[in-house]
Amino acid sequence: MSVDEKLKKIFAIKRENKKIKLIDQRLLPHKVKIITLHNYNETIEAIRDMAVRGAGSIGVAAGYGLAQAALEAKHLNLEKFNKFIKAASDKLLSSRPTAINLRHSIDRCLKVAENGTVTERIQNICNESDKIAFDDIKASRLIGVYGEQLLKENSNILTHCNAGALAYIDQGTALSPIIEAKRRHKPIFVYVDETRPRNQGAKITAWELSKLEIPYALIVDNAAGYFMINKKIDVVIVGADRIAVNGDTANKIGTYEKAVLAKENNIPFYVAAPSMSFDLKCESGERIEIEHRSSEEITHISGVNDSNEYTKLRITAKNTKAYNPSFDITPAKYISGFITEKGLLKKPFKKSIKNAFK
Amino acid sequence: MSVDEKLKKIFAIKRENKKIKLIDQRLLPHKVKIITLHNYNETIEAIRDMAVRGAGSIGVAAGYGLAQAALEAKHLNLEKFNKFIKAASDKLLSSRPTAINLRHSIDRCLKVAENGTVTERIQNICNESDKIAFDDIKASRLIGVYGEQLLKENSNILTHCNAGALAYIDQGTALSPIIEAKRRHKPIFVYVDETRPRNQGAKITAWELSKLEIPYALIVDNAAGYFMINKKIDVVIVGADRIAVNGDTANKIGTYEKAVLAKENNIPFYVAAPSMSFDLKCESGERIEIEHRSSEEITHISGVNDSNEYTKLRITAKNTKAYNPSFDITPAKYISGFITEKGLLKKPFKKSIKNAFK
Repeated sequence: MSVDEKLKKIFAIKRENKKIKLIDQRLLPHKVKIITLHNYNETIEAIRDMAVRGAGSIGVAAGYGLAQAALEAKHLNLEKFNKFIKAASDKLLSSRPTAINLRHSIDRCLKVAENGTVTERIQNICNESDKIAFDDIKASRLIGVYGEQLLKENSNILTHCNAGALAYIDQGTALSPIIEAKRRHKPIFVYVDETRPRNQGAKITAWELSKLEIPYALIVDNAAGYFMINKKIDVVIVGADRIAVNGDTANKIGTYEKAVLAKENNIPFYVAAPSMSFDLKCESGERIEIEHRSSEEITHISGVNDSNEYTKLRITAKNTKAYNPSFDITPAKYISGFITEKGLLKKPFKKSIKNAFK
Repeated sequence: MSVDEKLKKIFAIKRENKKIKLIDQRLLPHKVKIITLHNYNETIEAIRDMAVRGAGSIGVAAGYGLAQAALEAKHLNLEKFNKFIKAASDKLLSSRPTAINLRHSIDRCLKVAENGTVTERIQNICNESDKIAFDDIKASRLIGVYGEQLLKENSNILTHCNAGALAYIDQGTALSPIIEAKRRHKPIFVYVDETRPRNQGAKITAWELSKLEIPYALIVDNAAGYFMINKKIDVVIVGADRIAVNGDTANKIGTYEKAVLAKENNIPFYVAAPSMSFDLKCESGERIEIEHRSSEEITHISGVNDSNEYTKLRITAKNTKAYNPSFDITPAKYISGFITEKGLLKKPFKKSIKNAFK
């Protein structure tokens, strides 16, 4: 099977008229269960509970969610329709606070629904939501092509969290150069950060790489520094949830740690992200809201027991107090460049980002 | 209950003639089960399987293990006794490779068994093994007294892994200044790194602190950088498994990451360790053997289910490939000082370490 045939089996999200289908990422890698979301409220729940996750996938889900809302509101008059869409947008926007893709998707869908009849607006929202997914696929492929040029033969790449097919669309962002290298038969090796607390690296990235037959090793987040100082890692590539104009980057908690370690060890640190992840209204990382999630994400964990039953365990003492920031901000100074669909953006970032996406 | 009364309930290891009793640390915090080791082979198994863990506790266990071996060999003639003790020492030494305390304990016990009758040698080994534990208690208390002076009122302290009562003896090493501050009613707060893969922070440090009623929050290893850059952490204190003469320090995997992050954020980074953790024969960190443990430590995890049954889960896909170095080396340049029973050792470390322990 070719890389592309294998890729087809790993899809984050699809829309079929009013229905959204997605792989429930909470059950991976133990079960590949496709769930159907019948209305936009179910879609909001799926985003909030992280059945669908990853900046790009959340963005596409939000657009599709608004398409669902529009289709649900087709019997309303224009005034009530607009109110309904406004309320649905607000709810979708508040489902996850950090990834900018969500806001961009909603903005794009709302913009095409400013004029016309209810029927026309519905059609425009649906078309735009599909276009968002299509644009993401294009961006993903281009990120792969540009990023692959940064990988030497036998490169050892560290990645954090999951920025692959399930986090984005198609090839993802951080994994896209890696998949492109595989397509071109360039030998590479991937170190996969486990990415506590939700273990997206262990559960999703490792699973995706093994499905794509790309050689990898899972490591705990604590071990990345060990492999860096022992010269086992040549380059770090991560995704992003939101990038400010100055290059400060919000991404999964722990990204900042890897960036500091990479700099200390003179290892290039790249952020792979499409235009949809840049927030041109955001001057710097200080302005980015960081989501804090439940402490249960740390104190409990799910997996399968000896009988292959999906189970949840408490792994700490009862009532253990935990703080759980879900993202961190990596200051731009630690970032070597942004791999985007417009090519590699270099320093000074304020200039290169504005030039690329103006 | 006073701090000292609470402390008495948390003990790593005790010897009662030929029997060793210890809290099985693998079951914490879900069960406080005291197991009895009847002979030195059982003690080796307990060290290898990490029923007892932590540099100091391993050292004491090894001394006690040799005392068991000596008592087991009491019917042998001198020549056979010596052979038996030599074989037992070698097996004990190979049970865990990184912590130097183990070697120091064995060396001390062998040294006092160089002369005399079999009966005298047995008595000397037993006495020396008890003295090791007693010396560790003294060192632990002094580390507490010296280290507490480094903590300001309302200090926020980050610690990694477990270097408390169960890792060492009495108050431990890294936790000793914290316990001393509690004893003196100085308000402090502890951030506890979860410490994957074995979660000694989540399972043992958090449990010890909650038993001692010291305020803390558990965080994932990925989040320490977030709290550092957001100025929530004033000082980092960790333990050590082996310290070279130049100050390079082997400790639980992830320590190096925290040290680099602390330096980047101008946060003092202290290593709390007794003389027993210094390896004066070791010139630098490059000479320290790093233990690599089974990938199952990463791919599987234990905890309790809803019915409070102790269970093990697989948390990755089957056959996930993982690398699992258990320790890393923190180069001396990242370390602000060593909190020892001889006081705070400052730079240049080669001089201060040699002066303190010559």
